[in-house]
Amino acid sequence: MAESFRIGIAGLGTVGAGVVRLLQTHGAMIAERAGRPVEIVAVSARDKKKKRGVDISSYEWVGKAVSLAERKDLDAIVELIGGEEGDAQALLKASLKNGISVVTANKALLAHHGYELAVLADKHNAALMYEAAAAGGIPIIKTLREGFAANEIRAVYGILNGTCNYILTEMRETGRSFAAVLKEAQAKGYAEADPSFDIDGVDAAHKLCILSALAFGIKPEFKTLRKKGISKITAADITHAHELGYRIKLLAIARRLDGKVVQSVEPCLVPEDSTMGAVEGVFNAVFVEGDFVDTGLAVGRGAGQGPTASAVVADIIDLARGHRPPAFGVPAAALANAKKGDPGEQIGQFYVHLTVVDKPGVLADVTAIMRDYQVSMEAVLQRGRDPENPVSVVITTHNTKQAHIQEAVDKMAELDSVMAEPSLLRIELF
Amino acid sequence: MAESFRIGIAGLGTVGAGVVRLLQTHGAMIAERAGRPVEIVAVSARDKKKKRGVDISSYEWVGKAVSLAERKDLDAIVELIGGEEGDAQALLKASLKNGISVVTANKALLAHHGYELAVLADKHNAALMYEAAAAGGIPIIKTLREGFAANEIRAVYGILNGTCNYILTEMRETGRSFAAVLKEAQAKGYAEADPSFDIDGVDAAHKLCILSALAFGIKPEFKTLRKKGISKITAADITHAHELGYRIKLLAIARRLDGKVVQSVEPCLVPEDSTMGAVEGVFNAVFVEGDFVDTGLAVGRGAGQGPTASAVVADIIDLARGHRPPAFGVPAAALANAKKGDPGEQIGQFYVHLTVVDKPGVLADVTAIMRDYQVSMEAVLQRGRDPENPVSVVITTHNTKQAHIQEAVDKMAELDSVMAEPSLLRIELF
Repeated sequence: MAESFRIGIAGLGTVGAGVVRLLQTHGAMIAERAGRPVEIVAVSARDKKKKRGVDISSYEWVGKAVSLAERKDLDAIVELIGGEEGDAQALLKASLKNGISVVTANKALLAHHGYELAVLADKHNAALMYEAAAAGGIPIIKTLREGFAANEIRAVYGILNGTCNYILTEMRETGRSFAAVLKEAQAKGYAEADPSFDIDGVDAAHKLCILSALAFGIKPEFKTLRKKGISKITAADITHAHELGYRIKLLAIARRLDGKVVQSVEPCLVPEDSTMGAVEGVFNAVFVEGDFVDTGLAVGRGAGQGPTASAVVADIIDLARGHRPPAFGVPAAALANAKKGDPGEQIGQFYVHLTVVDKPGVLADVTAIMRDYQVSMEAVLQRGRDPENPVSVVITTHNTKQAHIQEAVDKMAELDSVMAEPSLLRIELF
Repeated sequence: MAESFRIGIAGLGTVGAGVVRLLQTHGAMIAERAGRPVEIVAVSARDKKKKRGVDISSYEWVGKAVSLAERKDLDAIVELIGGEEGDAQALLKASLKNGISVVTANKALLAHHGYELAVLADKHNAALMYEAAAAGGIPIIKTLREGFAANEIRAVYGILNGTCNYILTEMRETGRSFAAVLKEAQAKGYAEADPSFDIDGVDAAHKLCILSALAFGIKPEFKTLRKKGISKITAADITHAHELGYRIKLLAIARRLDGKVVQSVEPCLVPEDSTMGAVEGVFNAVFVEGDFVDTGLAVGRGAGQGPTASAVVADIIDLARGHRPPAFGVPAAALANAKKGDPGEQIGQFYVHLTVVDKPGVLADVTAIMRDYQVSMEAVLQRGRDPENPVSVVITTHNTKQAHIQEAVDKMAELDSVMAEPSLLRIELF
């Protein structure tokens, strides 16, 4: 058998320990599939003594992660430190500059600095691999970069954050509030102590940014990406959506529209009996529309030690086999500056929920505003009767421009009879 | 840019013409993704003059497909002739013997002769690529070979024949008989004039054979694979399944069980609200269970010109990039002779439909047989009342061994009061 493929691993948290465990568990199988053994030579992390559930005593301990990049005896470096800058960035840059291929799961870093890293990788003839950076249990990076490489991609969208999907699923199944379910998710370890990256849509936006770059051959650019989280979704929204035949999902969507790329992360209504609607709990789903392949869809676990380690080691096996695809599917020099479209220009159907005083004339005020903004309504439903007290009014629209309905809803929010901030959510029928 | 990647295409039917059209449509994009232009040098088919909707006048016409294998100026040969032996087999063998990599969509040939071809490919240092051979719109070959390469695969299963899924979906939606829907599918071009490969489960079995080889590192071996088609599914079965909350799908299933591989293609009941149940019409779905990645699922179009061409060209791009993975994920010499398990040993729940005379004592006879074969029943339902005339009895079982319930049902078929061949279908809950 050929000589070992020698790697250094930086970062031994949940994912790092999972990678070590996987390589230890399946060493012989991986050697057969990779055509050569994969050998962990050196590891680096903050605390050497921390209990990790794996035996790392036979690997060289390296105090400073970045020093791994200076070693001549490594074929690849696996970065699992995390963070959009700092040690992770320093290690990846130094490794690539020294012509050492890297494998990373670091979505924040790729979303912010992916282009710069891809340029370095090309310049120094090294590979930048990151299957684990988006939807670990779904080989979506490989699918976009290779499996669907013969297609002009029209759209990529899906459920990219398992924490949000878990919370929304729990809210629907138990009828509890966002705050209560979040608290429980934190207790169970499904949500971080500081949950903002997940619930504000930042994590999903990082991933969408990477998928958009691969799908459309554009430079990853995080700052222009519009994102809205799930913290304002109420139990009432979920109930009304259900009554209308929908579920609420945090969707990350990137589409080509009139020569521009429109990207957004926001909670949407999807049909309850659709494939997207059936993706529940911590699962992720990614849909891809290509001009020859039509629509493809993949579902799998988005995170967790096993699925993420599986994705990291798949990249390692690819490198050991000698496979070195361009980071974003084309040479970095060919990546375009995307013309970004305004999500407000998108046409679609919408759901509006208003909390109004139950008195005559309120619906007339609301529908008059819709008329003024030329929004055609599909249905207006008042839920419950309780004179002079708050009741729910639910509106669904026919196709309309997002900017128009947004303005109309802003106007409704100013009505004296509207008692709480209205909900406005897109309905995505796919 | 590097020099062209030069290919010859044998077979210019629907798929072959699609590949030509795709390469003509996306030449510049593909050159960027492959790192070099892909150039069609020569083509071969039976009839030069046939209308194909694509301009092939600038390619060299080759009369005998097999002669493509003798050319020194080709980097790869694309075989789209079809058929498990004959010209397709001769071309693939000759090409590989001459060290020329091949791309094929030929599932029948791979299911029957895949091992022999993989040995040849390894011996002559050529690649054998076949993404289009199973579920064209789903990159399942790449996913098993590369994306999930870090996993011991426990099971691979799914809906692998779009024609059957279309027929079953139509039967459910319209209430019509199998024969009526098949006839319409033939008129629409969704089913062949000789539909037996599809409806008898042969096509799905070919694909399952290939996926099993990749998933489990075993030699493809078609003849031991148990298959049962959909031609005996009645409108009544579909109605009863629906009343119980299930849909009927032709499932191809390969699982590791006690060190053996159990494979079968047969119609099964799946929960109506499950992801599998939601896969309707011509779509395919493949589920994979790995020990680290957990369960992953992909859905896409199984066939058709665009999706199949997309898969063929993805393979061509891989080869042009220099990617040459082993045909079945490991060297051919490492492929094992699988110990095949008996599907009859599988434990599961079952659905039985009996057409019986409506008279006292029939249910007693039926339930006595169940007791004798130690099958525990979940429910026994008589549908309708029509004394002395045929009515339906539907039984669902608790977990039981498939061989036991099969024997019990064979016994029931012998009862005087049972008036038609009973239906026995597995319930797959996943």
